[in-house]
Amino acid sequence: MLIIGERLNGMFKSVAKAIKEKDSKVIHDLAVKQVEGGAHMLDVNVGPASADAVAAMEWLVKTIQEAVDVPLSIDSTKPEVFEAGLKLCKAKPLINSTTAEKEKLDILMPMAAKYDASIIGLTMDKKGIPSTGEGRTELALNIIAAAMENGISTDRVYIDPLILPVNVAQDQCSKVLETIRECKILSDPPPHLLLGLSNVSQKTLNRELINRTYLVMAIAMGLDAAICDSLDKELVDSVITAELLLNKDIYCDSYLDAYRKKAVAVR
Amino acid sequence: MLIIGERLNGMFKSVAKAIKEKDSKVIHDLAVKQVEGGAHMLDVNVGPASADAVAAMEWLVKTIQEAVDVPLSIDSTKPEVFEAGLKLCKAKPLINSTTAEKEKLDILMPMAAKYDASIIGLTMDKKGIPSTGEGRTELALNIIAAAMENGISTDRVYIDPLILPVNVAQDQCSKVLETIRECKILSDPPPHLLLGLSNVSQKTLNRELINRTYLVMAIAMGLDAAICDSLDKELVDSVITAELLLNKDIYCDSYLDAYRKKAVAVR
Repeated sequence: MLIIGERLNGMFKSVAKAIKEKDSKVIHDLAVKQVEGGAHMLDVNVGPASADAVAAMEWLVKTIQEAVDVPLSIDSTKPEVFEAGLKLCKAKPLINSTTAEKEKLDILMPMAAKYDASIIGLTMDKKGIPSTGEGRTELALNIIAAAMENGISTDRVYIDPLILPVNVAQDQCSKVLETIRECKILSDPPPHLLLGLSNVSQKTLNRELINRTYLVMAIAMGLDAAICDSLDKELVDSVITAELLLNKDIYCDSYLDAYRKKAVAVR
Repeated sequence: MLIIGERLNGMFKSVAKAIKEKDSKVIHDLAVKQVEGGAHMLDVNVGPASADAVAAMEWLVKTIQEAVDVPLSIDSTKPEVFEAGLKLCKAKPLINSTTAEKEKLDILMPMAAKYDASIIGLTMDKKGIPSTGEGRTELALNIIAAAMENGISTDRVYIDPLILPVNVAQDQCSKVLETIRECKILSDPPPHLLLGLSNVSQKTLNRELINRTYLVMAIAMGLDAAICDSLDKELVDSVITAELLLNKDIYCDSYLDAYRKKAVAVR
């Protein structure tokens, strides 16, 4: 299970401030702590407030790589910001993200091929997010087809079926679980399935409980990647335990510690 | 999701002592606390040490029913002990349990019909527990067929695919998850799927974490009943949250409290 740390995002005030003031220490600390918490990859988003998003992405990617060696997920909506981040990545990056719209796929799939990057595909198009599992799966298939047309192996594609907040779209949570299961058989090799987890608990009172419960359910259905808060120890403990129960890691009494030691070794 | 409290079991020293000394207060307290914790039903087992198991079961069932009104799960291996408990139950009881062996089914299915009881069917026979999901599902089918022959509706059957401890049979955890999913389509109406949860974590260091993680995964796969420790608040919180995420209860900010208030109302 690929844990992608969500905290290096300009939507967090402390990160926006650090980007503005070029405060490397704040970024280094957040990068190291997320990896120590269990993240295998870090999401990098300069946030909506950056005046010069290209320069901000360049600085952020360079600064993170001064502190950690894990691969980065370059998170943006603008092609020039993606390019700015991708060209500086030392390890094979992840593009976060394309939708299933042809205009987006036509730009971002060739970019993934150019930079030998993996890519996240959101199951939405101009009409928005389909309300059914079938609708989401259909869009996932379009994304996978576009990857193949660009010579990108289907196991470099991360399908994100777009979980919505449980307090506004409660019926969608189980539909996303079904989509995860269905998408696993769309291609050979199968695509990865990913969630931007924290969205499920937006504006709820029990955010951490809802996050970890949903993540464990999704792992049971075949989820193998999540953008989430690797500083949330209980969340990461739940992921490690779920993987253990799926026989993906060998049981030992100290399996939680063993997992984290492995993560830190690649820092 | 039916939560069956596991604590009124003579395997616990305090319960064995209370049975021996006919200490009603200990039993009343444990019954009330389990229901307050979220149990909808209580498992009743006099334990291996009771000299007169029939008398012990009679006393235990009477004593529990002085304190709570929830239905009881009569837990034994002996027909005469089942009879002793079943005949005293005020609410429709659950027989815990039969195996898929013909000799057992021939005794316990007619008993379920006689007492209008539901029944737990363990997916094992004289050869033991099958090591594959298919093997377990085949035995589940035998149990369901025996219920139908005895005029018991298939939704009165609780199939238990027998989870084994993760530290000795790690590969079995995912097979049991698959069995849960497969058994749901064996009959119409489908059988219930149940786990004796605590077995998964026997002799591990992180018992509560392993219990709640596995239970949430099993709920995602279709589990709808568990014999477990309803005094474990984090476990019950996880169950309530998993059900919320499956849209089985309506979201409100105080959904945890709301659930528990409902449970106590039936005490």
